[in-house]
Amino acid sequence: MQSQLRKDLLDAFTNAGEAYLSGQVIAELIGCSRTAVWKHIEELRKEGFELEAVRRKGYRIVKTPEKITADELRLGLKTNFIGKNVHYEESVESTQKIAHRLAYDNAPEGTVIIAEEQVAGRGRMDRKWHSPKYTGIWMSIILRPNIPLPKAPQLTLLTAVAIVQAIEDLTGLLPEIKWPNDILIRGKKVTGILTELEAEADRINSIIIGIGMNVNQTREDFPVELQEIATSLFIEKGEKVSRSDLIKGIFRNLEKLYLLYLEEGFLPIKFLWEGYAISIGRKITARTLSNSITGTAKGITDDGVLIMVDDHGKTHHVYSADIEL
Amino acid sequence: MQSQLRKDLLDAFTNAGEAYLSGQVIAELIGCSRTAVWKHIEELRKEGFELEAVRRKGYRIVKTPEKITADELRLGLKTNFIGKNVHYEESVESTQKIAHRLAYDNAPEGTVIIAEEQVAGRGRMDRKWHSPKYTGIWMSIILRPNIPLPKAPQLTLLTAVAIVQAIEDLTGLLPEIKWPNDILIRGKKVTGILTELEAEADRINSIIIGIGMNVNQTREDFPVELQEIATSLFIEKGEKVSRSDLIKGIFRNLEKLYLLYLEEGFLPIKFLWEGYAISIGRKITARTLSNSITGTAKGITDDGVLIMVDDHGKTHHVYSADIEL
Repeated sequence: MQSQLRKDLLDAFTNAGEAYLSGQVIAELIGCSRTAVWKHIEELRKEGFELEAVRRKGYRIVKTPEKITADELRLGLKTNFIGKNVHYEESVESTQKIAHRLAYDNAPEGTVIIAEEQVAGRGRMDRKWHSPKYTGIWMSIILRPNIPLPKAPQLTLLTAVAIVQAIEDLTGLLPEIKWPNDILIRGKKVTGILTELEAEADRINSIIIGIGMNVNQTREDFPVELQEIATSLFIEKGEKVSRSDLIKGIFRNLEKLYLLYLEEGFLPIKFLWEGYAISIGRKITARTLSNSITGTAKGITDDGVLIMVDDHGKTHHVYSADIEL
Repeated sequence: MQSQLRKDLLDAFTNAGEAYLSGQVIAELIGCSRTAVWKHIEELRKEGFELEAVRRKGYRIVKTPEKITADELRLGLKTNFIGKNVHYEESVESTQKIAHRLAYDNAPEGTVIIAEEQVAGRGRMDRKWHSPKYTGIWMSIILRPNIPLPKAPQLTLLTAVAIVQAIEDLTGLLPEIKWPNDILIRGKKVTGILTELEAEADRINSIIIGIGMNVNQTREDFPVELQEIATSLFIEKGEKVSRSDLIKGIFRNLEKLYLLYLEEGFLPIKFLWEGYAISIGRKITARTLSNSITGTAKGITDDGVLIMVDDHGKTHHVYSADIEL
């Protein structure tokens, strides 16, 4: 399925855009016989791609499959490393778990694990994450930045910006970020981010970013206890959203922001992040494992740490907490 | 093999010390028939234990097997959590890799993975570690301290102290510590420590301490390129050293120091560490991935960071480096 020929074929369609590709041209571009071209086109159709074939013009792809396929992710992907190495799974315990193993075994930076379903998906603090089949984006991305350990949480904020941008671009919806790792639409959670890392005591080996995104669920697809606090892009937009287009949008934005971050540090990310932040200037309660602080969220530091001023005027730096608005 | 009965039997011998235990007493202590006692004693013998049986007195253990066994580690172990859950393997890629998986799957604090041989053992910075069969201690220990990420390297220094104490106690040899993770005898490396961690962006899930210790190798057991820089306890002491006694000594010292650390912080560990440190006050070169500094090692900070003063009188804080004396 993921042969070089197949990759070349999808790249050829990507480069052609709306134009048709004749069997002859395809054969030349990917270096096979015209008969073999026909065989590959048939295989794409079997995977759920719809191709329009026009006499004397050739083929073009008019619709991609419902189910995410590696081929579909390949089509139109223009990143340099994020998403170039994709492990696609039908059903897994959690994509984070697989990513940890691959990361420990030296998988290259930008490796992504995508599953159609997680049976034991997790959020922060070991909380369960509901991730049913074919409706959402459940994936983990391996990065290997050369940064000190305490800066790792910045990648959560960076990823949140990349995801909000991808949703905006594709759907026109206007998501907001609740520090540190929730993306909300109209106050309901649409995406969570779990950033984990593997390190030698003083050197990061890998950062593993888990993304759980509710895309095409109906309201009834959510368990009753989640219906008031969670939403999906489908519910908010009123129409189905292409998961693979969204994934590719995330890859593209994430790579762009990540390279900016490696070059310039966190500051440009901070400014972008603040533009989407919902909690700044508002009265919030931050709950940590050991205590809770109520006060006004003033913003984040240049390092991404939340600044709060409590009712006695005392300033607190919050490194990790759950936020209630 | 690791049935509750077997554990109870070894605990009974541990508590009896040098005294004999009659079949009747054993049967009562572990709650089985006298016939079953005989069967368990035979199984211990098959594992390589030597038992003395004296008429009208009973049994006592006079010699434990050459090969490390879970039973032998159980015998005499008086810790509360470190080493209570041991995974013993004949041959593995690396104990760190197994420990990472177990840690991710919520193995309890103090879980230990011991292997007789590692075929892909690793040291810091992905360097290979030579770990042949039956001669050394190759193990990984899972801890779950509630400390901020930047403090993780302190566990390397703490473990070094625990190991030096265990070697001293058992052999009378006087090892020294070369910051941050090498234990030397007469200038040659006898033990390396690799501290790795898994974390959510801002919360440690597990610290995995890998220990590689050369115990009973002869000089000829080392590859030629290591003979000038590595040594073993056998070479230094002139006689074989019981690996399981050493392991139990490490467990005991590590647990004691770790509890002290959780209670009092790094300061008491710092003072112990300084007593064994070889490099302090000497001219050293510290090589990092990006540059190298030559100067005098002044000591470590209260956080365990190496302090160096270079030839121009400038002070440097070294978080991670290879040290040349």
